[in-house]
Parts: sequence; C-alpha cells; structure tokens
Amino acid sequence: MSNKMWGGRFASAPDAIMAEINASIDFDRHLFRQDIAGSKAHAAMLAKQGIIAADDAQKITEGLDKILAEIEAGNFNFQRALEDIHMNVESRLAEMIGAPAGRLHTARSRNDQVATDFRLYVRDTVDQLDAQLADYQQALAERALEQAGTVMPGFTHLQTAQPVTFGHHLLAYVEMTARDRGRLADARKRMNESPLGAAALAGTSFPIDRHATASALGFARPMANSLDAVADRDFVLEVLSAASIAAVHLSRFAEEIVLWTSPIVGMLKLSDKFTTGSSIMPQKRNPDAAELVRAKTGRIVGALNALMIVMKGLPLTYQKDMQEDKEGAIDALSSLSLCITAMAGMVRDMQPEPARMKKAAGEGYATATDLADWLVRSLGIPFRQAHHITGSIVAAAAKDNLPLHKVPLATMQGVEPGITDDVFSVLSVDRSVKSRVSFGGTAPSNVKREAKKWLKLLEKEKK
Amino acid sequence: MSNKMWGGRFASAPDAIMAEINASIDFDRHLFRQDIAGSKAHAAMLAKQGIIAADDAQKITEGLDKILAEIEAGNFNFQRALEDIHMNVESRLAEMIGAPAGRLHTARSRNDQVATDFRLYVRDTVDQLDAQLADYQQALAERALEQAGTVMPGFTHLQTAQPVTFGHHLLAYVEMTARDRGRLADARKRMNESPLGAAALAGTSFPIDRHATASALGFARPMANSLDAVADRDFVLEVLSAASIAAVHLSRFAEEIVLWTSPIVGMLKLSDKFTTGSSIMPQKRNPDAAELVRAKTGRIVGALNALMIVMKGLPLTYQKDMQEDKEGAIDALSSLSLCITAMAGMVRDMQPEPARMKKAAGEGYATATDLADWLVRSLGIPFRQAHHITGSIVAAAAKDNLPLHKVPLATMQGVEPGITDDVFSVLSVDRSVKSRVSFGGTAPSNVKREAKKWLKLLEKEKK
Amino acid sequence: MSNKMWGGRFASAPDAIMAEINASIDFDRHLFRQDIAGSKAHAAMLAKQGIIAADDAQKITEGLDKILAEIEAGNFNFQRALEDIHMNVESRLAEMIGAPAGRLHTARSRNDQVATDFRLYVRDTVDQLDAQLADYQQALAERALEQAGTVMPGFTHLQTAQPVTFGHHLLAYVEMTARDRGRLADARKRMNESPLGAAALAGTSFPIDRHATASALGFARPMANSLDAVADRDFVLEVLSAASIAAVHLSRFAEEIVLWTSPIVGMLKLSDKFTTGSSIMPQKRNPDAAELVRAKTGRIVGALNALMIVMKGLPLTYQKDMQEDKEGAIDALSSLSLCITAMAGMVRDMQPEPARMKKAAGEGYATATDLADWLVRSLGIPFRQAHHITGSIVAAAAKDNLPLHKVPLATMQGVEPGITDDVFSVLSVDRSVKSRVSFGGTAPSNVKREAKKWLKLLEKEKK
Amino acid sequence: MSNKMWGGRFASAPDAIMAEINASIDFDRHLFRQDIAGSKAHAAMLAKQGIIAADDAQKITEGLDKILAEIEAGNFNFQRALEDIHMNVESRLAEMIGAPAGRLHTARSRNDQVATDFRLYVRDTVDQLDAQLADYQQALAERALEQAGTVMPGFTHLQTAQPVTFGHHLLAYVEMTARDRGRLADARKRMNESPLGAAALAGTSFPIDRHATASALGFARPMANSLDAVADRDFVLEVLSAASIAAVHLSRFAEEIVLWTSPIVGMLKLSDKFTTGSSIMPQKRNPDAAELVRAKTGRIVGALNALMIVMKGLPLTYQKDMQEDKEGAIDALSSLSLCITAMAGMVRDMQPEPARMKKAAGEGYATATDLADWLVRSLGIPFRQAHHITGSIVAAAAKDNLPLHKVPLATMQGVEPGITDDVFSVLSVDRSVKSRVSFGGTAPSNVKREAKKWLKLLEKEKK
Repeated sequence: MSNKMWGGRFASAPDAIMAEINASIDFDRHLFRQDIAGSKAHAAMLAKQGIIAADDAQKITEGLDKILAEIEAGNFNFQRALEDIHMNVESRLAEMIGAPAGRLHTARSRNDQVATDFRLYVRDTVDQLDAQLADYQQALAERALEQAGTVMPGFTHLQTAQPVTFGHHLLAYVEMTARDRGRLADARKRMNESPLGAAALAGTSFPIDRHATASALGFARPMANSLDAVADRDFVLEVLSAASIAAVHLSRFAEEIVLWTSPIVGMLKLSDKFTTGSSIMPQKRNPDAAELVRAKTGRIVGALNALMIVMKGLPLTYQKDMQEDKEGAIDALSSLSLCITAMAGMVRDMQPEPARMKKAAGEGYATATDLADWLVRSLGIPFRQAHHITGSIVAAAAKDNLPLHKVPLATMQGVEPGITDDVFSVLSVDRSVKSRVSFGGTAPSNVKREAKKWLKLLEKEKK
Repeated sequence: MSNKMWGGRFASAPDAIMAEINASIDFDRHLFRQDIAGSKAHAAMLAKQGIIAADDAQKITEGLDKILAEIEAGNFNFQRALEDIHMNVESRLAEMIGAPAGRLHTARSRNDQVATDFRLYVRDTVDQLDAQLADYQQALAERALEQAGTVMPGFTHLQTAQPVTFGHHLLAYVEMTARDRGRLADARKRMNESPLGAAALAGTSFPIDRHATASALGFARPMANSLDAVADRDFVLEVLSAASIAAVHLSRFAEEIVLWTSPIVGMLKLSDKFTTGSSIMPQKRNPDAAELVRAKTGRIVGALNALMIVMKGLPLTYQKDMQEDKEGAIDALSSLSLCITAMAGMVRDMQPEPARMKKAAGEGYATATDLADWLVRSLGIPFRQAHHITGSIVAAAAKDNLPLHKVPLATMQGVEPGITDDVFSVLSVDRSVKSRVSFGGTAPSNVKREAKKWLKLLEKEKK
Repeated sequence: MSNKMWGGRFASAPDAIMAEINASIDFDRHLFRQDIAGSKAHAAMLAKQGIIAADDAQKITEGLDKILAEIEAGNFNFQRALEDIHMNVESRLAEMIGAPAGRLHTARSRNDQVATDFRLYVRDTVDQLDAQLADYQQALAERALEQAGTVMPGFTHLQTAQPVTFGHHLLAYVEMTARDRGRLADARKRMNESPLGAAALAGTSFPIDRHATASALGFARPMANSLDAVADRDFVLEVLSAASIAAVHLSRFAEEIVLWTSPIVGMLKLSDKFTTGSSIMPQKRNPDAAELVRAKTGRIVGALNALMIVMKGLPLTYQKDMQEDKEGAIDALSSLSLCITAMAGMVRDMQPEPARMKKAAGEGYATATDLADWLVRSLGIPFRQAHHITGSIVAAAAKDNLPLHKVPLATMQGVEPGITDDVFSVLSVDRSVKSRVSFGGTAPSNVKREAKKWLKLLEKEKK
Repeated sequence: MSNKMWGGRFASAPDAIMAEINASIDFDRHLFRQDIAGSKAHAAMLAKQGIIAADDAQKITEGLDKILAEIEAGNFNFQRALEDIHMNVESRLAEMIGAPAGRLHTARSRNDQVATDFRLYVRDTVDQLDAQLADYQQALAERALEQAGTVMPGFTHLQTAQPVTFGHHLLAYVEMTARDRGRLADARKRMNESPLGAAALAGTSFPIDRHATASALGFARPMANSLDAVADRDFVLEVLSAASIAAVHLSRFAEEIVLWTSPIVGMLKLSDKFTTGSSIMPQKRNPDAAELVRAKTGRIVGALNALMIVMKGLPLTYQKDMQEDKEGAIDALSSLSLCITAMAGMVRDMQPEPARMKKAAGEGYATATDLADWLVRSLGIPFRQAHHITGSIVAAAAKDNLPLHKVPLATMQGVEPGITDDVFSVLSVDRSVKSRVSFGGTAPSNVKREAKKWLKLLEKEKK
C-alpha cells in the first residue's frame, strides 16, 4: 500500500528496508509537544492573515489540544507507516476533524516544521540543563563554604605540589560550570530564531506573518533566510559542543572521585547511595555513578562528532541525512542531564577524610615553594637562585627521609647561610594555605568569600 | 530495599539516580541468548569437574532452557531493579529451581560473564554482517557483468577525466567490500578467545576447565591472562573500526547515487521502492535511503570514537565505564546492517541512463589522455612533451567549442606537424574504453572476466 | 647534562626519548609575542607592588624588548634543551641582563605563564579569524546583490525542489557566517580573563596585583580561582568547536562548488586562479581549493576531538597532557584561516552560468508547489487535497514527457475540473521566484534588500 | 608564472592562496624514498616491456639514484612551486638527464604514483612499529618474570578487589600488545597490493606489466581494479585504527604509572630519566613521559577520526581531499612510535615498591572472595549464600576496623556456625595469590611459565 501522505504518484510500496531505515517516529515522537505548539501557532497565524477560515483554525486548535492530551495520557497510537511525528499528528487530526485538517499544512513544509520542532526541543532542554547546572553549582558552593579550611594536597602531574583547601578545589568546578552555563545561554540566544514560514526552502507566496508565529513560540525573531532556515543545524552542533565541554568538566571531577575513594588513596568517602557492591567481592564500594559520569563523556563527544560528520559536505538545503540530528542529540543531552544529577548528588553525599588529606598535603615537600618564596622575600635572593637553593635543601631532606619542617636549621644553613629560624614559620601546610591570599588564591578567607558570593548569586538567580 | 544480589552489607538503598544511570538491562537484554549459552557451558563444566553436583547442573540447564524459551516467547519479565541481564536470568532461575541456582555463579564473576556474553554477541553479529556483505558483493558483481560495456565518465575531482565502464565502477566497490569482509574476518579470529574462567580478575582456586567452556562456546581457546580477559575491550574497538571503514565505503557509493539520481545529472534512476515523495513538492523522488546510508556513517564512526574515549586512560581491570561498550556498538552494528541491506537493494534496483552516461563521458575532452598516449606511441614523443602538445590542442578545441574528435586535423598539425589521420581512431569513448586492457583496467573484456571471477567465488563460498 | 632550569636535584640526564616527547619549543615558539608581553606585564606589576626593584624591572623590560626584536628578525637561537618558549626567553634574558632575570619568575609559575600565553594567542587568532569571516561575508553579500535575480534550482535531497535565486543562496551563507562570528565573539568574551598570578596552582603570598596584569594584557578581569586558572582549557575547546562548525559550513559550500563546476552539472565556473590541471588529462580544471576546504573540515574537527580526548578524565590541576592543547589548535585555526581566505577568493572569482541554472530550475516540475498553492488560493481546496491533485497532474505530465507549463489545460481539468487558464500564470520559474515575498523568501526584491542591509552593516563594522 | 608541469593551457597564475593550500611538498617530502623506488620500478618495467628504450631507463635509474643521494645528504632543493614530491623529483631528473626524464611518466599518473608511494610508506612504518612493539613486549615479559611473585592489589573500579602479582599485571599488557601487533600484521597483509599501473584511473593502453612492478616493490600482487586503486585509502584508515587501539592500550598503562608514582599511592618509582622537575616546586618528580603517552592517544584517535571525516561521502575516484591523508597519518604514526619507545623505556626503568604494594593488596578485605570460595568448597554452601555470609563477616570486620584475617573465629561462627579454624589458611594475600592456578590465573607459577613462554617466542621471532 502506498504512503497516504505523499503517495499520489507512487505506483508501488517502498521496499521493507525503507520503512526501517527511513521512519523517524521511534525518536521524533519525543517532539510531540513542540510539534503541536508549532502547528497551533501556525494555524492561528493562518486564520489571522485570512489564509484559512477562523472556524477551521479553531477546529484545528481544538483537535491538536485533544491529541496532546491523548499523547500525554499514553492513549495515542503512533504508527510507523506514518513515518514521523508530523504525519502521525496530522493524520490523527484528519480523523478527528476531517477536511479542515488538510488546511493546516498551507504555506508550510515538513522542512520548516521539523526545523522548528527540534529547535524548540533543544531550547527547552537547554533550559532544563541550565537549571540542573545551577543546582550543581549550589551543591558545590555549599560544600566549599563548609570545607573552606580543609587542607588537602594540590596536585600537578598527580604529584603533590602545594597544599590547597578542599573548598578551593570545589570552587574551581563552580567556575567551570559557570562557563558551561554561559555557553548554553549563548547558544540558546543564538538559536532562538524561528524557521517557521521558510516553507520547503524558498518562502511562500501566501501572505503569512512569520513574526507572529515566531513571537507565539517564544522566538526572538524569524530567521532571515529561508534556505538557511531549513538547511542548517548549527544550533544542534553548538549545544552538543557546549554539552561535550561540560561533560569533560564533569569527567575530571568524576575521575577525582574514583581516585580519591579508592582505598589506596582514601581521601574521600561516598555513602551506599552512590556506590554499589560486587557479585563476588562483598567488601567493594564501587563508585559506579562516578565511573559512568566519566564514561558518558564518550557518548556525548561521540554524538557531537557524529553530527559533524553527518553535516560535513552536505549541499543545501534539507537532505535526509539531517534526520540523523535527533537521536544522538536527544541521547547526549539526556545523558548529560543524568550526569549532572548524579554529580550534584555525589557532591552532597561525599565525605572528605580530613586527616588523610592533611597528611597527604604535607608529604612530598609540598611547602618547598613557600621556602623558596621565603628566600626571595626575606633574603632578597632572586627567585631562580632561591629555587636552586630550595632544590638542594629538599635533596638533603629526602636523603635523610625528613619532611621539610623537620630539617635541622644547620642543614639548611649549610646550603644557604642566610637562612634563619623564621623560615619554619612558612613550612607547615596550614601556614602555607593561609598565606595564599592573592586574588583567586587558596587561603580559607578567600574561599569563604567566594563561596558566599556564589551562594548569594545563585539565590538571586532563583528569584 | 537493598539490592538482593550484592546487598548483604548495604544499609540503605541506592539513590534513585543510581538506578537510572546504572541499570543496563535496557540494552544488555539483547545478550540473553549469549548469557544463557555461557551459563549452560559453565554449569556443564562445573559438574564435569566435580565442582557442583551433576544433578544441580541438570536442574540449572533445564531452568536456563526454560528461561530462554520464556524470553523468546516474550513472556519474561525483565526487571530494572535487577540491573542487568545476568541478574535477571539468575534471579528467575532461583525462582524456578531454588538452591541449585545459587551454585551457578561458583568460580565465575559478572566481570568474565559480561566479557564472554558480549564477545559472543559481537562474534555472532560479525557473522551476520559478513553474510550481508557477501550478498551486497553478489548484487554488485551481477550488475557489473550486466553493465560491463556501459560507458560512463570516470571522475577525478568530480571532473570528467577518462571514460570508464559502469561495470568497472561497480567492481571497485566489490574490491572495497572484499577488504571490509577481510577486516571483519581478521577481527573475528582475533576475538575468538574465551574470557570465561578469569573470574573477577585473578582466576580462581576452583579446578575449572577453561578449555572445555571455550570449546563449548565455539571459542578457539581461553584467553591467556585473567586481568586482560576482564579488562580489555579491543575486540569491540576493532569491529567498530572495521564497521566504520565499511560505512565510509558505503557512504561514497551513497553519495554517488544521490548525485547521479539528481535531475541535474540524470545518470541513474531508482524506482519508487527506494525513493520517497515530498509533502509539498509532488514531483520529487528523494533518494532517502542513499542519503541515510551516507549519514549513518556519522553514528558508526561516532560510536567508535565514543568507545575510544571511554577506554582511554582507564586503569585495569574492569571499570564501570566499560558498560558503555554496549549501547553504541549494538546501535552501530545494527545501523551498518541496515545500510548494507539498503545498498544491496539499491544496487539491484538502480537503472543507469546509458545515453546520458555516454554523452557525459565524451564531454570535457575525456579522451585527451588517449591523444597524449597516441603521440607517445605513434610519434615517440616523450610523455611530458606529449602532454603539453595535448594541452595546446585541447585549448584550441575549447576555443572553437569543439569536442576533441571534431578538431580539424590541420589544427592539430598546427600544434604538432607529425599528427596523422590515424589519431582519430583513439578519440572516441568506446575506443578509449576498449583499449584499457592493462591488468585492472576498465576494458569491457576485463570487467566481464572480473565479474565472473567474483560470481564464481561467491557461489563457492556459499557451499 | 642536567636541565639547567629545574635540575638542582636531578642526578642524571633525562633519557633521550624524553627530550623528544617532552620538548614543546617546536610549536610553542609561535607564542613568543604573547610570552614576552606577559612577562613585561608581570615585571611592571612586580615593580609597582614593590616586589622587585624598579631598576630590575626596567632591565627586564628592555631585555625582553631586545629578545622580541631578535626573534622577529630571525636572529634568535631556539634551543630544544631549554624545552619551551618560556625557558628559551628567560635563559636568553639571563645571558643579557644577568641576576635581575632571575627575579622575573617571582610569584609566577610556568603553569600560569603558559595558560596566559596560550589564552592570548587564541584570543589574537580569534580576532584575525573574525576579520577574515567579515571579509568573506562582504564577498558573499556583494555577489548576492549582483546575482539577486539569477534563477537557479533550489535543492532538497539534491532533487530540484523549487526555483530560487543564486543571490538568495549566497545570503544563506552570510547568515551562517554571522552565527559563526557570533560563536567566536562569545568565546572571546568568555576566555578574556587572566590566569596570570595563579602561580603554580594555589596563588601566592606575594602582594601581587592580578587586576593590573589582567588590564595590561587586555583581559577584562583576572580569573577567580587559581586551580581553575591553571587546570582548565575549555577556552581552547570552545574556540575549536566554533571553528569546527564554521568549517562544516565552509565544507557545504565547497561541496556545492565542486559539484556545480563539474562538467556534468555546469552551473558554475572558476577561473584558472582557483583550479589546477592534471598531469595526464590536460583538459581538467580541478577545483582543488574547494576540495581542500571541504577536506580540511576533517583535521579541524579532528583537532577538537583530540583535545576532548586529552582533557577527558584528567584530574586537576595542570597535567603534562595539557601540553597537547597547542599543536592541534594552532594547526586547526590556521587551517581554518586558510580555508576562509580560499573561500572568499572563490566567491569573488566564481562565475555562474545563468542559462544552465535557469534551465535546471525549470526541470523536474519545480513549480509543482506553485500549482498546489494556486489550487488552495484560487479554488479554496485544502492543501492536502491540492497536493494530491498536483501529484496526479505531475504524473500525467511525466507520462507525456512534458514540462508543467506545457500540460494542456484539458489534461489538468481532467484531474480537477475547476482549474482555469489563470493557472499558467504561476508555472514559470521567474513568476515562482518573484512570488516568494514572505519574510526571508527568495524573491529578488527580498534578496536585494537583505544584501544591502548586510553590506551596510559590514561597512559600519569597519569604522 | 604558470606551473610548468600542467600549465600548458593555463593563462594566469594560481592565486597565492592556492600555493599555500595546495602544496603538499612540506609533508610529502617524507615519501622521497618510496617515490624514487616506485619510479625506478616503473622505469625498469617500461624498458622491459619495450615501452621506453633501455638506454632511457638506465639514465632515469641513474638520475634517480643521484637524487636519492642528494636528498639523503640534505643537498636537495625542495621547491614549493613544484607542489609535491613527485614533481620535485621529476623536475630535478629533467635538469639532470633532459629528454628521457619526460618518458618516465608514460603509462602512469600522479594518482597511482601517490597511492603507491604512501602505501609503501605506511607499510614501512608498520614494520618499524611492529619491531618496537616486540621490544616493548620483551621489556614487559622480562619484568614480569622478575616480578612474578610480587603481590599487589588487583583493582576493579579502582577498588581493591583481589590480590594479584605485578608480573601478572605486566603480562596483561603483553597480551594486548600481541593483539595490537596482530592488527598491524593483518593490515599490512591486506594493504600489500600495488596500485601502480592503474594510471589516472582507467588503466592504460600501453602494454605494461603490473605484476612486475608489484613484485619489484615487494607487493604481493597488483590491485585488481584501477578505480579502486586510485580512489581508496582504507589502508590508511585501517592502520590508524590499529594505531588508535594500541594507543588506548598504552594510555591505560600510562594512567597507571601516573597514578602509582603519585606520592598519595606510592606503589611505583620512576628514575630521573623519565621524570622532570618543576620550575617552582623543586621536590616534584613529574611523570611527564607517562602523561604525554596518555595524552597522545588524543592526537592519534583524532587523526583517525579526521581521515574518516575526509573520506566520508567522497565520490570516486581521486579527489584532492585525499591529499589530507598524509599529514595526520605521518604525525599519528610517529607519535605512536615515540609513545612505544617511551613506554618500553619506562617499563625497564620502573621500580615497584613491594612493601607498599603488598600492604595495599591486603587492605579493603581483598581476600573476601577466598573466604566465600572456602565456604563453598569446605561447607558445600551454594555460592550466592556463601557470598551473603561473607558480606556479613566483612561488615562485622569493618565495624571493628579489623582486617579479615584478624576477625575472631567466634565472630565468624556467629554468622555461619560451620566455619572452622582452617578458614584462616586462605585469608592471607600470599595464599590467595598462590591458589589462583586456573589457566590464565595470577598464581606466580603461572606467571613465570607465561613470561618464559613469551620470552622464548620473542627470541624465536628475532631469528
């Protein structure tokens, strides 16, 4: 049997494989809300412009409302033979209201319809992701305030570098997340233009009002070029890029959680809520959620990459290839959503082991820089020379297996005679951390101020 | 309620998000056949080695057979709370046969179980893909034989370069596909080792016989290192690489189909079986299937890339991240399967437009090389000089808007006095094509011989 | 010999492979301008804050200026043994001015130095890319104005869909490019914060003024968290994302150029300036530049993907892995720069073949939608029904091998009796194009208005 | 000035940007050896077939040998204006020997020439990588034999799971590397067919002998289809896939090295040869080489991805896009080479900290599985029940903060009355490790046997 929507001219039915490769209803059904909203806006505009009768528009609107209710109630019979969400809705509308349904598609095409639907869907998803990221920031800032004074090792190359505070570490993620939100906000603003009314690709000769439909759907304006409107998917690529970068940020913290909760490190604990057991090793507390957050970066970046590949080298305008924009994006964005929720949960759940952290912070001569800085400040030695002197003292300490603050003054003076007893005042991790009061530095006073600033800001945003 | 499989020690239930991010049953249910086969082989071996009673093994086997039947009949109640296919099956087995079910997991872990299941699944899928690719080769070779003499333009840079035959063009894809099959076959051979018996990661102290289970499951041998057995997923990466390259090959032919069936080119037709109509432009015959084959390269390469990202930098052995190996791979391999079927269908369906092809083959001075070669052969002119002479003659022809075989002899002699009337014998596209009899060349006689060779080979394979 | 910068404690020389894998001077030498600017700003601030003597700062500044001049003149001896640009410059400074050079690195680390340098480099590159993209828009808009009335086929699925104008097509790329520029501008704004003063990772106890150095380097403000400042590279990822999307846009036009300049299509010509010949087929005019623009999408997206992989799962803060941020990004951004220049050149060079375009626009029943719209408008037939009627008329026309405007009225009336002679007024491509006056539609009047708007805007930008 | 190789017909010079975007000599000069070898084989065959004079062939051969010597000596003047390695060599040959040089290109095209050159280059590189991987296996197997009895924690989810031996862990990488080598060997075999003689794309009418040139260049046979020969680059894609998987394997060990050499873990030490210092923290021993090995996975996978993108959707045959196959592949393969050398060096350099390893192996109730297995074996309890009992005992132990082998028998009997004193025989890490004698298990006896097997095999390979 030939397809009832476009089949006028087709003599035979499409090959079975076509139905399988071509039908999008399995995933574009997610767009039902946006599809119906778009159709309602279009119908209202058509009536206002006198292109269809007001009465027809009203029947269309009422029919669409009923269909929305049916879908939301799970009473809608999606049919693969009708290929996509647009045809499923329109076909049901025809069943419901008859002839007027046939007027809905005036001055419109599936090309601008699908572009509109998916733009709305992505926009709605961005709004949801933003709210989740704000909640994640909230969790981070709250814990940062609480942990403003908890000393832990600051790492470079996973080597202990200098002592920092756990609160400061958490705030680093607040900053990254702020930029992640900024990227989504910019993408949202850029994509918030309406393709509707571009029709198949060339615009239309009907006296439509694209500004009216744009406005009804919350778009800032209609897109200025009809070919661009139906041909481009950069809004998806941009949101997937922002999502990928956010996922990379989450993966870094996830890696730290996996690492720190390992018994060989032991700086952090997660409760049973965010760990699982093993089928054969009952003692395990596997940080599954953190591992999966780390791993899901793969599928999010993979979806971005996939769509870049799809779009590369496609001539204008709509090509069927572009149907591949949806599944990957829907999966990637919902994966990101899952990851944010999981991370916010873990941030609220995690318990640092302050004793272990502090001990680790002091190992590895982490206050060597403080010693070098003391040499510069107190003895006026150029930094590079101070650095060499410090290196020699550390070598001496390592040889005797002593921490820096236990090295005898005499040993130090053997390397640099000018060193005095005062040097010991900078060699403890607490003193080190407190001294880092430069803007953005790790001093607990800084951390508290910043955490409060963020909490206030996030509070304000909610209003 | 705590998870009943690993919950002995856990006081509270996992957070709701955990269930959502952690459960794999939505996609690993695809592995039910492999999971049950693996368990049956394991149980039989345990009994044979005296690790469990023969009677228990029999109950386990019968129970598993019933579960297989239940799943195949659609009567199995998959439960998300049981996380994955292994626990769903084992839990149902416990319901069915009680205590003996608890003995099945002796000397085994989910780590080697999932590695075994997925290896079997991928191996089975590779076998299916190979059969499909062979059928695609068959379709190509049949059409190649039929079209051995159909002259069309051979392109470089999408510029008409030299005339070739359509059959020769089709055979190029037979060759690529042969290498694609070779890659899958090599991957299959390399992956065909059994992880079963590696247990959690260290092997076991039970006197198991890994060679027996390997053999029962059709593996060539057990894997030689237990850590490697549960930690590595290179077999998935390799198959996805092979799939990606195959997809790239398909995308190239798909691009050509889209291009050649465009009315601006008009060298090829697809029937209604492989084209669709437009909702607003009733005259369109959109080559949707070809476009989707081209596009799906994105998701296949995307899945490869995603899994590379997942695995990069993971310490040994099993990490939860590795659960992300399945969804992408299952989707990518079934997408490839769909693409092969669609392409084989299109190859059988497509109708060349020989007149348009031949005309295009003759345009753009496509026999210029034949002229240059004639100069070399007949006048003994060095090729580089012959090339320059030809360039000048073409320039003259283009100036007068003449095809090469219509350029007056005098004009040619004006450029190179030695040229004789004999030159016209090489300037037609048919003569050009027939003359390319070098090994692998486009001459119809070559094409026929090669097509027949392939058809014979494919026939032989089937036996 | 041990490295002279950090070698105080090291007894033996690094393995030869280390020099090879570790040294970055081969690519970070590109950052010399930014490195020197950063050091000058840092020295001036140190002096102003009384951390080093004003006299030392002056010597440092003068030395750095001399080094800049040396490098620009090609007289600087870069040494691999000094690993990177920072150490090469500092080492030369020590040669020049002695002890004061050793004070430059006070309250600074290579970690914040490299973050600052590369941020400045990427920012400068973004500015250059923006100017190039504006020039590309200018070229497009100028040709769009010129070609506002040139009718060509509008394609979907590479099937002729509806007639459009070449100017309208060119303007679609102006719109995409505007969004590409918007993405770069947003990224620039977001990245324009100074990491300098974060020191190794924890901030410093020296009384530095990070706002002063930020301001001296044109940054809007210092970064608020020292760990984030040295650990994050999202500014590179974001710019590479924007570059990748821009490259995808360029690849689409490049594909069209390759396609349209093919002799089998013949809608466009490029001059000798942007085509090359063949070593064996003298008649070829290969659109190499367009092909390479299309291809370079691969390496740009590849660089984005590579850096995502590098950063995924890296614990804070600086890891040596992050050194891999530079080569790929430098190559990708300069490739994009090359592509933009090449495309702007081709846009200015290309000559459409209006006769071929117009003929192609009329083929394939491209005004079928106009017929359907006429049925809706003139006879009040619902669109879906009008669509079916049109389909039947097209089928009849195709059967008799007639273009739509040559189908006898009687034949049309046989399908829909209400059709009158007036229908022929909408069936020509010129009439079709002119009627598309909806906002964003392809009507020549629209195109002219839009092209002028853009030219005015671009003119204004320059001031 | 117009290009002297293909300029016969071109009136004006290419735009400056063309030279920049088009010239490949900056990277394809790497192929000089292969290019000259290919030309020599071609010339010899042309002479043998009587297509050119023997005397000319001799002059060509002698000239090419001189050019090879010039390039190797660094005395060759590569010119960008000559675009690529082929034209640079041929042009120099013309300078040297005059007219006969013009005969070399008979029955050949740049299309088959470049395909041949790069195939040879990749094949040679694969051979080199294989030798390096064998050396890496040697290093691993030697250390495995030495460390066969060193007990360390076996991890899943980075949680201590069960004790294993360091030697066993190293052998896991020997296995992965064996498969990596297998992939390269399969790729080499598949690619080892000669494109030479495919000419531009259609074959040739000259009576060439492709089997002769194939054989002279060490190819197994000529490629069977001329279009395929010049159009396909799957051999590069396949080698890049194999390289990417190998890089992922290396990245996993690199991650472990970074992790284990961190002072918070302290299970491994690298000497000064493979670590670097810090400019501000003199105590640091940064495992730069390991970090860079981990990171370079990004660029290798990036190169694979880039070439997939380049090739996707390219119509046959040669497109200029394919020039992008070289830079990325050359960089990726030489990066992999660097990484293998660095890893082999680190494997030989690394020193485990056996005391720390053993202590960590015993933490986290790592012998819980041994307890569960004892319950199954000694008391006949079904595994699932044994697992629950073990869970309860571990919970009790954790509550009292006791390691498993210190839990009083009474406590255990409180959970399961059947437990006897014998249970303590399985609770030490040494006993645990020794008991894992199943095939592929971690028992030191197994490890020694496997390590010796590998060393013997590698020794045999060398002969």
